Amino acid sequence: MTTTASSEFDTDTAVTPSGNGHYSTTVSDRWVIREGVANGGYLLALCVRALGDQIALPDPLAVSAHFLRPGTPGPAEITTEVVKQGRRTATGSARLSQQDGAVVLAQATYADLGGMPDPAAPNGTAAHGDTVTSHDTAAPHNTAAFDNTAPALADPDSCTDPLTLSEQPGVTLAARVDYRLDRVPGFWYGTPSRNPVSEFWLRFADGRAADTTALAMLVDAAAPVVLDLGVGGSSTIELTVHMRARPAPGWLACRAFTRHLSGGYHEEDFEIWDSAGVLVAQSRQLALVR
Amino acid sequence: MTTTASSEFDTDTAVTPSGNGHYSTTVSDRWVIREGVANGGYLLALCVRALGDQIALPDPLAVSAHFLRPGTPGPAEITTEVVKQGRRTATGSARLSQQDGAVVLAQATYADLGGMPDPAAPNGTAAHGDTVTSHDTAAPHNTAAFDNTAPALADPDSCTDPLTLSEQPGVTLAARVDYRLDRVPGFWYGTPSRNPVSEFWLRFADGRAADTTALAMLVDAAAPVVLDLGVGGSSTIELTVHMRARPAPGWLACRAFTRHLSGGYHEEDFEIWDSAGVLVAQSRQLALVR
Repeated sequence: MTTTASSEFDTDTAVTPSGNGHYSTTVSDRWVIREGVANGGYLLALCVRALGDQIALPDPLAVSAHFLRPGTPGPAEITTEVVKQGRRTATGSARLSQQDGAVVLAQATYADLGGMPDPAAPNGTAAHGDTVTSHDTAAPHNTAAFDNTAPALADPDSCTDPLTLSEQPGVTLAARVDYRLDRVPGFWYGTPSRNPVSEFWLRFADGRAADTTALAMLVDAAAPVVLDLGVGGSSTIELTVHMRARPAPGWLACRAFTRHLSGGYHEEDFEIWDSAGVLVAQSRQLALVR
Repeated sequence: MTTTASSEFDTDTAVTPSGNGHYSTTVSDRWVIREGVANGGYLLALCVRALGDQIALPDPLAVSAHFLRPGTPGPAEITTEVVKQGRRTATGSARLSQQDGAVVLAQATYADLGGMPDPAAPNGTAAHGDTVTSHDTAAPHNTAAFDNTAPALADPDSCTDPLTLSEQPGVTLAARVDYRLDRVPGFWYGTPSRNPVSEFWLRFADGRAADTTALAMLVDAAAPVVLDLGVGGSSTIELTVHMRARPAPGWLACRAFTRHLSGGYHEEDFEIWDSAGVLVAQSRQLALVR
């Protein structure tokens, strides 16, 4: 994993081994989403860092996590177990606990995404061509009209920095990540658009390049688009992230959308595309409306 | 959970407690997808049955699983651990192992979906109204054109039973589930359509009504739509299922689609809608092309 000693993310996801797959760490107050509540993706990244320390393969490939209670800034213990250490993939589990008990139960499969075909190479091009495009829908009832291309976003400089719209007191996470909104969701103005789809740019505020471990946090770093349906907020129950490629440096183009809110639950899908136009992360979470 | 003593699914997912959260079971040869390889969703259902036996809440709500090696018909042990036993949700893990080692690592959060608002009631209607519809896309670049309505399928009797197109020797799973295809994907004729989207009806062949536990298997019960991109097959690495409601009896309308095949990996999304037109399951798996 690429780490920058001075980066906020690497500093705040540092874990200290205490033997037998156990790690001690500190949940930083620099990644909270409201008073005393740490971002779920940040907690997941702590688990990925600890488990990754036990695994020979460099990249998390599929990470799934169940959230049991809010994580709070302060000391935490992470217990990891490597169940399979294979040549091509390795899988294990990690549990982050604080004084009140288990906070996150995570499982992850690791691989080496460095050996993936360059999307610019014929091979990769073929692979990337092997997807449905929204104007190539032979399916009945037009059900294949899923956009599977990178968001066509305006230049970051001509997009809106949401922090210029409203301060986010107590949301320290907002200072860790730069956001540039191509279209400002209505909820930012207190007028939900009823259209829970958002496209925007994302990057670490301190210039750290994103890697596959950071993607586990970044997919959960934006305000939930379900706010555009007028709900007050939501709490993540389960989050799964698939890392599809190592991101190239630069701004990340993101698309977040919710298609189903029912029974008080909603999913949020999140896609991250790198500066080369390659899909690098695809995630979905199930959350309970507050 | 609704169980029918005589149903194939309930018989073949029976688990015998041996104390301390341990269960013994037999992986049946009635759910194999090729010679000696059990269906992943079936193996996941075995984990859900065992863990559910330890949990007071009736419905799996979010289930995530990592697959380490193929499961084979024969004896298996399932080790469960309940980590949080809450009033509204409970979460734990389950590991299914066979002689060669761990086969499936699963985590699941349970809840009571019986208390959910009836979609037919004003409350539920409102909730179901709170979704993007494909003709309600105010988002830029038309990126919100995601179909979030139940597949509009022809009557099951006028759809195609794939078993009339080609026998599935060795695929015993095909005899456990009835399929009715509204449109026959090209791969059934050996001519991939390049459009990996499929809509079809699904139900247990023996008439067992689907419940939230069965949904964990059913989302993995169809041939992967990625076959329509001309690949030979794929192996599931990770599968997450969100149970969104208890299914009403009758045929289940399904939509399976793959949007991204790259670096040898692809996702498959799977949605199941019940006979009342309610979304009951939403799943995604990451798989490696064989």
